[in-house]
Order: sequence, then structure tokens, then C-alpha cells
Amino acid sequence: MASTAPVPGFRAVVPAGGAGTRLWPLSRAGAPKFLLDLTGGGRTLLQATVDRLLPLTGPDGVVVVTGARHEGAVRAQLPELGPGAVLAEPSPRDSMAAIGLAAAVLVEREGDVVIGSFAADHVIDSGPGFADAVRQGVVAARDGHVVTIGIAATGPSTALGYVRMGPSLGLADAPGARAVLGFTEKPDEATAAAYLATGEYRWNAGMFLARAQVLLDHLARLQPELHAGLREIAAAWDTGRRAQVRDAVWPGLLKIAVDHAIAEPVAATGGLAVVPGDFGWDDIGDFAALRDLLPGGEVRVLGDAADVLALDAAGSLVVPGTGRTVVVLGVPDAVVVDTPDALLVTTRAHAQRLKAVVDALRDAGRTDLL
Amino acid sequence: MASTAPVPGFRAVVPAGGAGTRLWPLSRAGAPKFLLDLTGGGRTLLQATVDRLLPLTGPDGVVVVTGARHEGAVRAQLPELGPGAVLAEPSPRDSMAAIGLAAAVLVEREGDVVIGSFAADHVIDSGPGFADAVRQGVVAARDGHVVTIGIAATGPSTALGYVRMGPSLGLADAPGARAVLGFTEKPDEATAAAYLATGEYRWNAGMFLARAQVLLDHLARLQPELHAGLREIAAAWDTGRRAQVRDAVWPGLLKIAVDHAIAEPVAATGGLAVVPGDFGWDDIGDFAALRDLLPGGEVRVLGDAADVLALDAAGSLVVPGTGRTVVVLGVPDAVVVDTPDALLVTTRAHAQRLKAVVDALRDAGRTDLL
Repeated sequence: MASTAPVPGFRAVVPAGGAGTRLWPLSRAGAPKFLLDLTGGGRTLLQATVDRLLPLTGPDGVVVVTGARHEGAVRAQLPELGPGAVLAEPSPRDSMAAIGLAAAVLVEREGDVVIGSFAADHVIDSGPGFADAVRQGVVAARDGHVVTIGIAATGPSTALGYVRMGPSLGLADAPGARAVLGFTEKPDEATAAAYLATGEYRWNAGMFLARAQVLLDHLARLQPELHAGLREIAAAWDTGRRAQVRDAVWPGLLKIAVDHAIAEPVAATGGLAVVPGDFGWDDIGDFAALRDLLPGGEVRVLGDAADVLALDAAGSLVVPGTGRTVVVLGVPDAVVVDTPDALLVTTRAHAQRLKAVVDALRDAGRTDLL
Repeated sequence: MASTAPVPGFRAVVPAGGAGTRLWPLSRAGAPKFLLDLTGGGRTLLQATVDRLLPLTGPDGVVVVTGARHEGAVRAQLPELGPGAVLAEPSPRDSMAAIGLAAAVLVEREGDVVIGSFAADHVIDSGPGFADAVRQGVVAARDGHVVTIGIAATGPSTALGYVRMGPSLGLADAPGARAVLGFTEKPDEATAAAYLATGEYRWNAGMFLARAQVLLDHLARLQPELHAGLREIAAAWDTGRRAQVRDAVWPGLLKIAVDHAIAEPVAATGGLAVVPGDFGWDDIGDFAALRDLLPGGEVRVLGDAADVLALDAAGSLVVPGTGRTVVVLGVPDAVVVDTPDALLVTTRAHAQRLKAVVDALRDAGRTDLL
């Protein structure tokens, strides 16, 4: 029987950023994806992420890193977290700065804990697979590896990165842990299909685990200026000098993703491990994915189904968000998203093209809608 | 050069009724098609109809027959009409009662004028063709005929009635006037196409002209009870007994269309004439027709085009009615109608199916939306 106890010395970092433009007009700059309940389950993606992690870390074991603009909303959604558990970034500096800041602050506070980074806007099923993968990942991280959790692919996605698995690490308490032979970012569909046919590839969902000190040592070697800046900010974080140091140093930090800064170069020198995750996962990359996540029949509704009348609209997603009645007639695979200031009408086949809409609105000066 | 003077002794009757369910949610029971500006020209269909007729009748020559529910809105839209020019029906009794009431009231007021009936919700181009057809129709009506204006068909419509033209009447001042050989209501497409190929068929748009007394005499012969009821109401209309008589008699009147009550039986005995009309005409039977009437390019907008962003949506109609931004992405021929309490998403190919939506809403008890 799987353990339900917290994992000693494990801390979770939740980067809560990203605009989620492919879910416009549901997600906005001011109301990004992670702050929304996209499954209709009553909890936002951020809340569900923290709900999933707290049993593994124990109380006070989760740190959320978010933009200053969203700090208030994040704290309001997570009253169970202490005041020190939300780290606000003055401006976006990509995932390496976010995770590195959390690692450096945690080292200052607690020494060399194992940290795991989990995006705030992914959906993961509620079975035991996630916790089991994290427990094995922590074991491999304690052994000195940077660990990614490899997601079982459900198809040859061209929107995700792939990790190639190598031989087992032979760790007794992490039987699934294997070496990583390399990463490929967003391959074409034929390449992705060929990868999956080998059985040796998994999706890289950005779930990384490592000892905080191991992560920071890699960063010191690979991106020394970014490392120095983050350590300087972290040293001042829980003092009266936080704002002063943060605001002086943060704007000059390198914008780089953790994949490029750490995972790829460390994988190239054999320092990366992968634990295959046996759980359902989705990053809700577009409205087609959102539809498939929702319960229901031919027509799926996020909101009050009583507001929707759909005739000959199999495959559709309707998001009634204004209390108005939404009628869809004869448009299979329709995607209709009704919000107080903007209405989207498209189809599942075009769901990946929302960025073009957001760009067009920005070009037209309609930043009020973004 | 065509005359621009009023036609002596000619009066126009404008039946303003019908729910226009095929334009839901733009048209509603409380805001039917004729009260709306559907061309974006700044005048409602009713106003445009009266604008077109007043030059032919002269001031005070137009009578509008409408439901009691719409009397206030009709009067507000037509301040140029006198108080006696709007006849309110207590309840809908179809077109024969509406036109017959107007004919009977006009006979009481003015004797045997020529009346012409013109629906309040049709669009007619602004060229001289309409006035020319009416002038010829009045000549043929004075000669004792019931006259229909035959619309030049633009295609084998299955939603309209067809009139078959016979030999010329040989009237010097109405050279186009011909006998009517018969009517066919809503033929199938093959039949309609065969009709048009002969060159002898025209659309029947419900534009009838006749001397009021001729019309009433036909009615007295064909529907004596309806005739008697209407004459009784008309005799009391401009007296203090109007409400008393109207409310006692009107509810018992036969519901029948003028086509069935008069046009078809009179045509069968050779009393009907047709004047071919040489003008653009549309009854805006659905959103596909509405789109084609609007100016613009691939995407047509009824409302503020600044509220619409359409990408890969050629052939679409967007009606932004709430000030919200409407985005249509990758849905060719989309029909999107945005109103404060209801949103419709369909395509031109399904435009004729709105009645099913209205029926479904009624079945669901949502009469508030109808």
C-alpha cells in the first residue's frame, strides 16, 4: 500500500506565471489560467496543484512564485499558506529565475532540502501515480541527480518537449528512475510518433526535482551571474532589505527557461534522471484540450449547462460566462466562449491559433481585452 | 421621365405583424423584424416602407395595421402619421383581417379609394421601379382587378409563392399589366427552376392592389362572416364605440391569409392581374439573406464593425449588439448574433433552422427569450 505520509525534507515550488493566451478570452493577463477553475470542480488550477502537493510536503512545505500583479489573488486563493510561502517577482524573468529564487530562499531558510517544481496550471488525475513518482523522484534527487518526471504520452504532440530515457539508475527506493539521454523540444509529428514507437520517450512537463544545493551549484557553473543575483536577493529576502535588494537586482537577471539553463546542459553531461510518471496529465494547452477534460456528452459546458442550447453541435465546447443563453446551431466542434467584454467563436481545429487573435487585439490597441 | 407626384385616390396599407422567428435573437416577439434597422441605413424596415409609400399616396395616405402590443412603438417610429393612421388589432387574425379592416375603415372614411398592401418588413431598392409598378397597379385596380406585383425572381426559392403570368390586359396606362393564370405556394426547387425557365413566373410578395370596394365585394362573396365582422368594426372605428365593437367582434374573426381568402379564388375565376415589378426586393427571410443585403466584404457586420475581429471567416455575418468585442476565428459562413440576453452561433447553411431553436426555447419555458 502506498504511503500517505509527507516526504521528509521535501519542499514543493509552484511557479505560477504565464498568460495562457491560447485560452483567451477565458484567461487574461489579469486572470491567468492558474487562477481559474477550468475543470468545473470548484478549485482553481493553482488550488488543485497545492492540494496535490501539501500531503507530500506537509504543512508549510509549498512555496508559490508569482508575479507581483497576482500576489494578492494567489494569497486569497491559498489562505492555508503562510505569509512567507508566496514569493512575488517584480517582473517576469522566465522559469529559471522563478525556481532559482525559490531554491535560494529555501536554502537560506532550511538548508539543503529537496525541491520539486510543479507548474500551477496543469491538471493531474487524483490517483496514487503522482505521489509515487514524486517519492521516487525525491530519492533520485537525494542521490545527487536533477530529476524530471516523464509523462506517459497520449499521442505524438508537437507542442511539448520529449525526454529520452536511458538505463536504470539501480536505486532500491526508486526502481523507476533512469538516466536521461537527451531532450527534444517540440518535434514534428512524424518524429514524435517515431519517438513514441520506441517506448523510450516521455513528455517533459517541466516537473523537476533536485536538492536545492545541487540545483544552485549547477546554476553557479552554467549561469554564474544569474546565480549570484538570485543568491543576493535570497539572502535579503527575509530581512528588512528585501525590497531594496530585489528591486535593484531582479531587473538585470537573465531571462531563461529552466530547461535551457539546467536540464539540457546537465543531461548532456549525464547528470539528469527521469522517473516515469504513471498518472493522467494535461497542460490544457488550448480549448480542444479543455473540452476533452470536461465531463459530459457530445457537447461539453464549462459553467451552467442550463444556459446552453446546442443543436447539431457534436464535439463542441461552450463556456457561458455572462448568464446569457448561448445557442449553437449546426456548428460541429464549435468553441464558444462568452465573457462580459469579449466573445470568442471558433472551432477545435483552430484552437491553437488563439495567439494570432491576441496579437491582433494587441496590434489594434485593445490591451484592455488581454 | 417618371412621375414623382402622388397617385390620386391611392392609399397604402402596411400590415406590420409577424414574429420573424428566423431572425431570432435579433427579432423577438416584443421587437419584431419590422421595428428593426436591419440594413444599417438608419431607418427601420417599417420606417423605410412608409418612406417609400408616402410620396405615392401623399401625406396621410398610409395606414399601418399592427398588433396592440406594438402600437406604441409603431407610433413612436412614425411621428409623421396622424393618430388615425395606425390601426391596432387586439390579437393576430392573419393578413385578411388586417387588410380587410384597413379597407373597410378607408371606405368609411374616404369611399372607394384604391388601396395597396405592402408588408412592413421587406426591403426594396430605391430606384424608380417600385413606384412605376405601383402606378401601373393602381391603373389595373381602377379597372376592377385585384392586382399583385410580381417580383423578378433571383433564384428558384422554395420559401416563396409563385404567380404565373398570362396575356396582357391591354391597358394603355399599365402596359405591363397581365392576367394571372394561377398561384403556387412554395414549390420544390426543381419545380421552381422549371417555372423560372419559362419566363412566365414571378414571385408573389404579398403586394396586392385593388379598389377597396372591389376587395370588400370579393370578401363578402368568399368569406361573408369575416366581411360582416370587419364592416361592423369599421363602422364603429372612428366613433366612441370603437373599443366596444372591436373587442366584441374581433376575437371571432376567421384567421386566414389574403392569398387564400381572395387572391387564389379570384385568380381561379380570372379576376386577378399582375404587374411585373422591376426592382430589387428581399423579405430578409433568414440571416443568410440579411448578410447578402449588407454592404461590405467577406465579413459583413450589422452594427459597429470596430467591435468585430474576424480571421478566416469569409462569408460571415456578425451582429455585435452589446458593445462587447466579438472574435470569429476559422469559421467560414459563421452567423454570430450577440444580444444582451441571448447569443446565437450558427452558419449560413443552417439559417433556415432558427424556428427549431425558437421551438426548443419555448418548450423549455424560456418565453422570456422569445
